[in-house]
Amino acid sequence: MKIGFIGLGNMGAPMAHNLVKAGHALTAYDVSAEAMQTLAAAGAKTAPSPKAAAQDADFVITMLPAAAHVKAVLTGEEGIFAATAKKNVTIIDSSTIDPASVKAFAELANQNGNAFVDAPVSGGTGGAAAGTLTFMVGGSKEAYEHVKPVLSAMGKNIVHCGDTSTGQVAKICNNLVLGITMAGVSEAMALGEALGIDPAVLGGIINTSTGRCWSSDTYNPFPGVIEMAPSTRGYTGGFGTDLMLKDLGLATDAAKHARQPVYLGALAQQLYQTMSTKGAGRLDFSAVIKLYRKEGNT
Amino acid sequence: MKIGFIGLGNMGAPMAHNLVKAGHALTAYDVSAEAMQTLAAAGAKTAPSPKAAAQDADFVITMLPAAAHVKAVLTGEEGIFAATAKKNVTIIDSSTIDPASVKAFAELANQNGNAFVDAPVSGGTGGAAAGTLTFMVGGSKEAYEHVKPVLSAMGKNIVHCGDTSTGQVAKICNNLVLGITMAGVSEAMALGEALGIDPAVLGGIINTSTGRCWSSDTYNPFPGVIEMAPSTRGYTGGFGTDLMLKDLGLATDAAKHARQPVYLGALAQQLYQTMSTKGAGRLDFSAVIKLYRKEGNT
Amino acid sequence: MKIGFIGLGNMGAPMAHNLVKAGHALTAYDVSAEAMQTLAAAGAKTAPSPKAAAQDADFVITMLPAAAHVKAVLTGEEGIFAATAKKNVTIIDSSTIDPASVKAFAELANQNGNAFVDAPVSGGTGGAAAGTLTFMVGGSKEAYEHVKPVLSAMGKNIVHCGDTSTGQVAKICNNLVLGITMAGVSEAMALGEALGIDPAVLGGIINTSTGRCWSSDTYNPFPGVIEMAPSTRGYTGGFGTDLMLKDLGLATDAAKHARQPVYLGALAQQLYQTMSTKGAGRLDFSAVIKLYRKEGNT
Amino acid sequence: MKIGFIGLGNMGAPMAHNLVKAGHALTAYDVSAEAMQTLAAAGAKTAPSPKAAAQDADFVITMLPAAAHVKAVLTGEEGIFAATAKKNVTIIDSSTIDPASVKAFAELANQNGNAFVDAPVSGGTGGAAAGTLTFMVGGSKEAYEHVKPVLSAMGKNIVHCGDTSTGQVAKICNNLVLGITMAGVSEAMALGEALGIDPAVLGGIINTSTGRCWSSDTYNPFPGVIEMAPSTRGYTGGFGTDLMLKDLGLATDAAKHARQPVYLGALAQQLYQTMSTKGAGRLDFSAVIKLYRKEGNT
Repeated sequence: MKIGFIGLGNMGAPMAHNLVKAGHALTAYDVSAEAMQTLAAAGAKTAPSPKAAAQDADFVITMLPAAAHVKAVLTGEEGIFAATAKKNVTIIDSSTIDPASVKAFAELANQNGNAFVDAPVSGGTGGAAAGTLTFMVGGSKEAYEHVKPVLSAMGKNIVHCGDTSTGQVAKICNNLVLGITMAGVSEAMALGEALGIDPAVLGGIINTSTGRCWSSDTYNPFPGVIEMAPSTRGYTGGFGTDLMLKDLGLATDAAKHARQPVYLGALAQQLYQTMSTKGAGRLDFSAVIKLYRKEGNT
Repeated sequence: MKIGFIGLGNMGAPMAHNLVKAGHALTAYDVSAEAMQTLAAAGAKTAPSPKAAAQDADFVITMLPAAAHVKAVLTGEEGIFAATAKKNVTIIDSSTIDPASVKAFAELANQNGNAFVDAPVSGGTGGAAAGTLTFMVGGSKEAYEHVKPVLSAMGKNIVHCGDTSTGQVAKICNNLVLGITMAGVSEAMALGEALGIDPAVLGGIINTSTGRCWSSDTYNPFPGVIEMAPSTRGYTGGFGTDLMLKDLGLATDAAKHARQPVYLGALAQQLYQTMSTKGAGRLDFSAVIKLYRKEGNT
Repeated sequence: MKIGFIGLGNMGAPMAHNLVKAGHALTAYDVSAEAMQTLAAAGAKTAPSPKAAAQDADFVITMLPAAAHVKAVLTGEEGIFAATAKKNVTIIDSSTIDPASVKAFAELANQNGNAFVDAPVSGGTGGAAAGTLTFMVGGSKEAYEHVKPVLSAMGKNIVHCGDTSTGQVAKICNNLVLGITMAGVSEAMALGEALGIDPAVLGGIINTSTGRCWSSDTYNPFPGVIEMAPSTRGYTGGFGTDLMLKDLGLATDAAKHARQPVYLGALAQQLYQTMSTKGAGRLDFSAVIKLYRKEGNT
Repeated sequence: MKIGFIGLGNMGAPMAHNLVKAGHALTAYDVSAEAMQTLAAAGAKTAPSPKAAAQDADFVITMLPAAAHVKAVLTGEEGIFAATAKKNVTIIDSSTIDPASVKAFAELANQNGNAFVDAPVSGGTGGAAAGTLTFMVGGSKEAYEHVKPVLSAMGKNIVHCGDTSTGQVAKICNNLVLGITMAGVSEAMALGEALGIDPAVLGGIINTSTGRCWSSDTYNPFPGVIEMAPSTRGYTGGFGTDLMLKDLGLATDAAKHARQPVYLGALAQQLYQTMSTKGAGRLDFSAVIKLYRKEGNT
């Protein structure tokens, strides 16, 4: 397939790499010339603009920080739409953005004679490198079937979530639960410590009981409970506090527009926000436990 | 073994039953004569007071609603201590109460020449009937080994949590996480519904992703996502909202005394409290999702 | 003075009226022809577009629902900037919008050769009609002195808050406190009721003690405590729940961008959101007390 | 009048002093011999026990840290009841304790042939020394009239709140509002600072607008806004964080027993709790603003 790829950051670069390895004809664009050179060395073409990257493509994939970037890349003078008008190109946006923007972009794409699918990912930079990402796809059944072979070169699970924007909804709702459970496990572990139970014992009990959750059994915020978790290596690596903040911001924003209350999500957002305010935004989000522990200077 | 058993409620009755079935010589006391008769029919002796039930016992097990009841049953004129002085009896309290009271009771028991072990349970009335409860035991290693054979007649997992009161700490901290995750999953599922994703699809994604937790994959609060969950049968049966409130009350109280913040736990407590205020205290605690759904009249 | 006025809603219409009464030459625009006719009957000219209303004006005042409207009215093809280029017109925006948008609009205005001042108001529709509004003005000292005579025709207190956007900051921060205190007074009054104190007595004590606040002594949410408050007339009139939601949304959004935690503000937002979700968005915001009272069906 | 007085702490000592100055015959008891000597030097008698202090008294006043102390002083072997049986003595408890305990104590007093009135105070150590305290009195109209002359020697406002325990309800509900407004003003002031408005200007606007409250106009947490506030002298003096925590604990506990939600109160409690956990429990409670400010190391 001929694929245009816009956005070669921490996630986009390894994703593009895997597409090249799978034999697709890739033309890439990024604001960083260096990022483009690295990918060119792996066999991709590069382009001077999103428009140029999208020229002659069957699919265009965007992997960008926020909705504003996606909008600029789609509708700018040197943007994707300028190249794809009436060509029935399928645009796949793998950025994590708000569902309302997705709907607006999809409508613009349709007016331009293109298809638009939202396909945010989970799995982190590790999954992007290994090609084991999960893609949460929003679009018609046909659109899903159409993009599945392309996404399969970058991921292991390609899940159809429903119509346009439901891929983003799935991602946002999952990360809402994640942000809450991590803070919840943090306060329970810190409380247990203060009340005198061995954190490893407490972790073991929770993990085999009704408190069981990924934030406890795979990513426990208390140092030493789970050997492979960021908490055990000083909260480095992993999923940064500022990224969790971005996703909780998307969740509470979407809730605001849908007039839905999100009590715990809004409160969890403030906890991560406090971490960020005090300078810990780049630590793994499980460092939120520092707000609770006596020794946890933030 | 000769066992005294005080408290034949929804949990205590089937537990006592299983001890009788295992061949122990049981003498039981309860404020309800009817509860005693039912157990007598199964082969237990009954007694007119906690003191009488504890006479000649090697172990005394208490299963009561709150710390005040445990205190009365231990220290009252017709209480356990009146029968067990200097007899080296082991008292096992399986009630769910606050860790500070446990420490006080253990000290009183020691002064009376008895051992005291806290051993709260999880598994509900189903686990009590089936003899598959989990016991979380707080006490010395020796005390744990001593009570294990007795508890094994009533439960499948007998976990040593550490010194006196850590059994309660484990239970309280686990249920703190549980109360938070259930409310968190509720707000995510309700948000997803409002944003247009199929709840079954959203549940499936969360359950295979980082939001995975018991409150979602086993007990999902959205009707129809998990067939066996109370949400699918009108929030009947299961673990009542008022019971969750009791446990969150123990957690926030213990936190207050330990000077530990419990942000999400305190907020979750208010959500279940609202349910109770509005008359829904006897519904399963997963009914908290009604606070979030447009159609959820509480 | 020659004044263009854009936005003749519940607030804008009486404000424009007062400018006419004060003898200013007003040219008004609104999407509603009816609103323009009413004002024309009072002596104003009307215009077919913002551009036409701004033609030849010394000042242009905008009073609109949200930042998106202000942007459209400023930068649209038939917008204000199209008429005011290089004319050194002073644009006064009295809408309540986010500080970041204000800064962006001010920069655009400067590039267009105009001055831009943010001047949101407090005092409600009553104050707008009576000409007793408070204006919170953001801009240079000179800009403040320049707009003061114009604003004085519509308001009683014209407060200089500091540089561009600080008018909005003042309004947002004040309403953040307001949203929190109203919910706080609601939970205290409902708790007092449940604990058996006469609400009027409790109100009296709070109002002469350290809990004293506008939400209690002027606008108490418990019916009957303050005769003139909306609570005493079924929560009609006053400041709608959905308007409070808008302002708390601006506050939490601004906090998100400034990386500041707003714990109570975010939680209060969820409470008003719950009211709105359940269909009570048009009641006065003090109806939030219904979430707390046993009899308060929402 | 002959008055027994139990509890000569920071509040009790100056209160007892004022009773002596007013000409009452005072017999005092405290666990601290030093506190008794100081009072004796001012003209009071001292006693070796609460019982001895209550002997021959018309009124007995208690001013103690918590309900457990009041209970011990009333019902202990050397307690008040041992001296006052069937003597129609009026016991006035000015401690701040939970309403449920008050009701229990009042019933015990009645059974002992005594009257019992709850009369917690506001006004702090300054008001205690100056004799300008506010007393919130719970009891019958007759009981209120009976104690008023005695309380008038120590306070300026003697308010009848209703039946037994409503004095405590009034105090608890007022301080619930206080704890919430202080945290609310803190987050608004910190947000304003981060968004670039001069805190003194912001304080001035809030104090003349709908956000107006004691926590802002008299006790503003931002240093320098109110010259006489503890914030301006390093958060020393004033009302300690741990005391606010005690009162919020009483409020959330009373709410739990009454099955009333207290969303903002429970959250505010966690904020002050975080301050205490991190070692700031003895600072004035307005130091909670440090949780919000970038420079606020706690």
